[in-house]
Amino acid sequence: MERPRHQGMAKNTYMRWRLPLVCLLWEVAMIVLFGVFVRFGPEADAHWEEEKREMNLTSDIENDFYFRYPSFQDVHVMIFVGFGFLMMFLKRYGFGAVGFNFLLAAFGIQWALLMQGWFHSFKSGKILIGVENLINADFCVGSVCIAFGAILGKTSPIQLLIMTLFQVTLFAVNEYILLDLLHVKDAGGSMTIHTFGAYFGLTVTRILYRPNLEQSKDKQGSVYHSDLFAMIGTLYLWIYWPSFNSAISDHGDAQHRAAINTYCSLAACVLTTVAFSSMLQKKGKLDMVHIQNATLAGGVAVGTSAEMMLTPYGSLIVGFICGIVSTVGYVYLTPFLESRLHIQDTCGIHNLHAMPGLIGGIVGAITAAAATEDVYGKEGFIKAFDFTGTYQTRTPSVQGGFQAAGIVVSLLIAFAGGALVGAILRLPVWGDAATENCFEDDVYWEVPEDEESDVYHMHNPDKPASP
Amino acid sequence: MERPRHQGMAKNTYMRWRLPLVCLLWEVAMIVLFGVFVRFGPEADAHWEEEKREMNLTSDIENDFYFRYPSFQDVHVMIFVGFGFLMMFLKRYGFGAVGFNFLLAAFGIQWALLMQGWFHSFKSGKILIGVENLINADFCVGSVCIAFGAILGKTSPIQLLIMTLFQVTLFAVNEYILLDLLHVKDAGGSMTIHTFGAYFGLTVTRILYRPNLEQSKDKQGSVYHSDLFAMIGTLYLWIYWPSFNSAISDHGDAQHRAAINTYCSLAACVLTTVAFSSMLQKKGKLDMVHIQNATLAGGVAVGTSAEMMLTPYGSLIVGFICGIVSTVGYVYLTPFLESRLHIQDTCGIHNLHAMPGLIGGIVGAITAAAATEDVYGKEGFIKAFDFTGTYQTRTPSVQGGFQAAGIVVSLLIAFAGGALVGAILRLPVWGDAATENCFEDDVYWEVPEDEESDVYHMHNPDKPASP
Amino acid sequence: MERPRHQGMAKNTYMRWRLPLVCLLWEVAMIVLFGVFVRFGPEADAHWEEEKREMNLTSDIENDFYFRYPSFQDVHVMIFVGFGFLMMFLKRYGFGAVGFNFLLAAFGIQWALLMQGWFHSFKSGKILIGVENLINADFCVGSVCIAFGAILGKTSPIQLLIMTLFQVTLFAVNEYILLDLLHVKDAGGSMTIHTFGAYFGLTVTRILYRPNLEQSKDKQGSVYHSDLFAMIGTLYLWIYWPSFNSAISDHGDAQHRAAINTYCSLAACVLTTVAFSSMLQKKGKLDMVHIQNATLAGGVAVGTSAEMMLTPYGSLIVGFICGIVSTVGYVYLTPFLESRLHIQDTCGIHNLHAMPGLIGGIVGAITAAAATEDVYGKEGFIKAFDFTGTYQTRTPSVQGGFQAAGIVVSLLIAFAGGALVGAILRLPVWGDAATENCFEDDVYWEVPEDEESDVYHMHNPDKPASP
Repeated sequence: MERPRHQGMAKNTYMRWRLPLVCLLWEVAMIVLFGVFVRFGPEADAHWEEEKREMNLTSDIENDFYFRYPSFQDVHVMIFVGFGFLMMFLKRYGFGAVGFNFLLAAFGIQWALLMQGWFHSFKSGKILIGVENLINADFCVGSVCIAFGAILGKTSPIQLLIMTLFQVTLFAVNEYILLDLLHVKDAGGSMTIHTFGAYFGLTVTRILYRPNLEQSKDKQGSVYHSDLFAMIGTLYLWIYWPSFNSAISDHGDAQHRAAINTYCSLAACVLTTVAFSSMLQKKGKLDMVHIQNATLAGGVAVGTSAEMMLTPYGSLIVGFICGIVSTVGYVYLTPFLESRLHIQDTCGIHNLHAMPGLIGGIVGAITAAAATEDVYGKEGFIKAFDFTGTYQTRTPSVQGGFQAAGIVVSLLIAFAGGALVGAILRLPVWGDAATENCFEDDVYWEVPEDEESDVYHMHNPDKPASP
Repeated sequence: MERPRHQGMAKNTYMRWRLPLVCLLWEVAMIVLFGVFVRFGPEADAHWEEEKREMNLTSDIENDFYFRYPSFQDVHVMIFVGFGFLMMFLKRYGFGAVGFNFLLAAFGIQWALLMQGWFHSFKSGKILIGVENLINADFCVGSVCIAFGAILGKTSPIQLLIMTLFQVTLFAVNEYILLDLLHVKDAGGSMTIHTFGAYFGLTVTRILYRPNLEQSKDKQGSVYHSDLFAMIGTLYLWIYWPSFNSAISDHGDAQHRAAINTYCSLAACVLTTVAFSSMLQKKGKLDMVHIQNATLAGGVAVGTSAEMMLTPYGSLIVGFICGIVSTVGYVYLTPFLESRLHIQDTCGIHNLHAMPGLIGGIVGAITAAAATEDVYGKEGFIKAFDFTGTYQTRTPSVQGGFQAAGIVVSLLIAFAGGALVGAILRLPVWGDAATENCFEDDVYWEVPEDEESDVYHMHNPDKPASP
Repeated sequence: MERPRHQGMAKNTYMRWRLPLVCLLWEVAMIVLFGVFVRFGPEADAHWEEEKREMNLTSDIENDFYFRYPSFQDVHVMIFVGFGFLMMFLKRYGFGAVGFNFLLAAFGIQWALLMQGWFHSFKSGKILIGVENLINADFCVGSVCIAFGAILGKTSPIQLLIMTLFQVTLFAVNEYILLDLLHVKDAGGSMTIHTFGAYFGLTVTRILYRPNLEQSKDKQGSVYHSDLFAMIGTLYLWIYWPSFNSAISDHGDAQHRAAINTYCSLAACVLTTVAFSSMLQKKGKLDMVHIQNATLAGGVAVGTSAEMMLTPYGSLIVGFICGIVSTVGYVYLTPFLESRLHIQDTCGIHNLHAMPGLIGGIVGAITAAAATEDVYGKEGFIKAFDFTGTYQTRTPSVQGGFQAAGIVVSLLIAFAGGALVGAILRLPVWGDAATENCFEDDVYWEVPEDEESDVYHMHNPDKPASP
């Protein structure tokens, strides 16, 4: 049974030919480009035995696969289950949250393998991939999932695919500028993933501003069960964030350290989130929105510095601050951004990713600037910041300056890119829903009739059955 | 409150003595057989220090545990959470889906350790087990979970245990013929797990055909929340499938390669699934059944070839095709199989496992036949196909032929075994539910009365409470 | 809309200043203590390159991170998702179950890092942490999550934080006595985690006895969907328990063996749980409470012995027994404890943790006492029980005796500690809910109005909307 209002809706959300066309054409393009460019890296290629001999490795366990695959799988869970379920809090947008996240991420990782490959793994005309590339592709898509959070419920799947195409491209460019040109450290992506992704998404949602969005206000909330589904996303993001921040760090102490720092920051963040969630509600009750989101800010904010000698108590301090900033953001800043700046941020990514991402960039710059050979050891110092070759003479304070520059570059590319992509998405041909149908799965999905007379009332014989 | 129709149902589903008896007797049998046969393998035995010295290993990290345990846990999640939740889409069969899957898998892994152990790990009268055996046991049970998908909602737990007993046995025989006698490669089990499991299950459900199953048609659908629970299953299967296909591959490049190929195939598969799901619905809306299932077909279809030099673009092509085949299968083939061939396939395993499994076998045969020393390197070539000893002179094209033979053998054993087991399950003593009570947890489970007047209406003071 | 009865409730559950104060003060204390005491251990410190040279390690893969991190993440999932979702079975306490578990665990791991650090990782005035410390902190918090199960739904978040503070402290003391003074083996924590945690929690709930708890009996049950959420917790606990029991075992065979033993015990446990669940219900129907809980008892009961040469069939026997004991406990013992001993055990931790924990301690004592150099090998024997230095001359039977003493010590500290903490929690200042409001999220959480007229009835146009 179709609800009447859809029959009279102003916008054409009919996806039947447009969506398949985009999906099929783009996937064909991926196949062609992969065919031309992508090959197995030496550790995944059948010539590995020879490689091993050349590199003087005595055991298969030295294959990068065993250093990084467990972390990769944790990151993979975060992207598909973590983000997908976190966005499931809306009462009637669960299919869209998890399903569109699935779609855009599945496309995005392919395009990211190519884009990042051209910049970072290109050798003799081929992109040579291994497990580290898979992690980086997931990371890149993570920034798209973040941006998706801002426009959740208000865009068509085609718009999401278009945004993914552009955002992945710009992500790779920004990442190249930061990591290669500025020689900036950002293992957990406070700048490249969170700051970039969030301000990109906020710019897009600003441009897609819908003046009458309160028409669908009744569907912007959660129901009891949707909040529980969202907690699956929260917990998996929280649990696996140490893997995220350590996944592409150097082998050995750096991975180990990044995991510990992140673990500490996240733990502290939970306590200040709870404190401020209770403090800012007049009856002192906790708000699931804060628990679902602000508890994660500590992971975002050590994304740059986790692999450095931030130390466990330094991490606690960062987590402490970010739980507060993020929770306060949800209570005061999100309404302000919506009413004054016309930024309609469905999931509050400004509080979870943008501000903590900025803090993370700054913490990273400070931690780098404060590095000494005494703390790191002579070898550790060089290894941690890769002060070799051209960068042999770079000092910590200069590194700190470059780190800060990385924040600025990420912001600029996010704003410019978001404006461009927002403008493209405004074109009236992509099939986004009418404002009164936002946050409603029924527009793009076959939604089962819940036949609640059968399911929910089955034990209630006194109630007459619905016709 | 018992609903009246159960009181008058034709079949006796009273499990009180039959189910406990089967469970206890079989578990006692397991204990006795384990007592006689099963011991720790050298890498799990306390004599490991001596073993290490003999094998000239310098570090504990060379223990197979560290090569395979993370993959094992991912596979373990797939079997128990992945399959269990994927089958939870039915509105009133969530307990049965996850609970019976749990039961049959817990029994199946024990019996599989024995059966596979006798064929593959039998030394001086003992089965010596290690982490690879645990993975293989999970794999074997995976084929039973697949078959369960076809008969979901229509069988008693006793029938499921009986099916598990026979199917695990036949799986081990088939696996032995393929891997040992035909010397076929099938690391991710396109043939041994998917083709075998699916056609076995389809044969069983054909024999258990229920002519009046439309009597419970109202319960064969999903509700909004059950579809979200099913997505948990889908995503964990999708995310961890690279671990599945690489779990028992050779150490080093083979594991690494298998993970990358599977990752690529799955990503492509999502896009074509979305494309065809939209294209085949008259309003262009997406169908959760396709998203939940067809997106996984790409993992099935590289099960044989993932560890070979399929290459990333080859994987994309396989995933591309399988998303289409599987989605089209759900739309056109499943209704055809039900109406014409009387194959009632609750979860559509024909689309997710049978056809992609066959494709996977064929892709494996072709990839093997096309192998050259140039692509693999001299050592890599021998290692990849284990062309040593008796098989030293086997050529790629001969290997391709044997791979194809493996498909045929798997099909034959599946059909014959399924027919045998179906006939046994038809005996009227196993307590299956009457047709009008299919897909209903209330038959075998204490189901909480949802007291929706209390829970769902609690904030609705104007509605009088139910008596 | 606030339900009237809350306006007139007898107890003051207003958390607005008390809860934030506790969270913030304690987190500040953590930061100060971490600042004074906690530093990176040598494998996470940037001086690792020098360390590696000193320890003559040739590869980064020898870093303990790669031996334990995958297990750590599995344990992490168990604590936050496993326990959090397992306790979600209550129809109106899902937010509290998962949210308070999140809060207490996030605080507890910080305090545990300090407490356990002072006892076990204290060197030259600093606590040096690495991945093993993170695992141990999670373990310690596990015992608090267990105790939480007994008082679930009846305490305020402040009470939970206070209990966590004391219980973590006592856990560390008990652990020190057992592992260091008695030189007892308990890798998976049958005694230190389960026996201690469960009897601690049972003592607390006894002291917090609420005579009129049947007033909220209507909310102590589950609904269909809450039972499905709980199964997420069950399955992740079940799947990852082999990682739990092997996480801190010695590198190599011990970890490998512990995982296999646990896998076997858990598999057997499922079958006897199903058998007795059906047998003990008059219609032979299965009870989700048993499936959710008793299936896990096998993991608890091999917590001490899993790393020993318990052997696969020994593990099956332990699992076989514990499935029975636990299920019978739910049916007969829990009602008895409540009516006669006034122990109100919300989750039935007596059946899942207390009894299986005791069994686990006993099995461990017997397995240790039965150890021979023949079974373990000369080196393996010494390594397995760490019979070096002061303990060079300890015999297996003496070790068995000490193991048994460990059980007694754990029980004594649990009873004494639980009594103390229970007495503190009885003070009328911590904001626990009135008895008629137990098991109700609305007391401490902003609960969304489910607007079922909008959500569940949306496709039912014939039903008039609720006012």
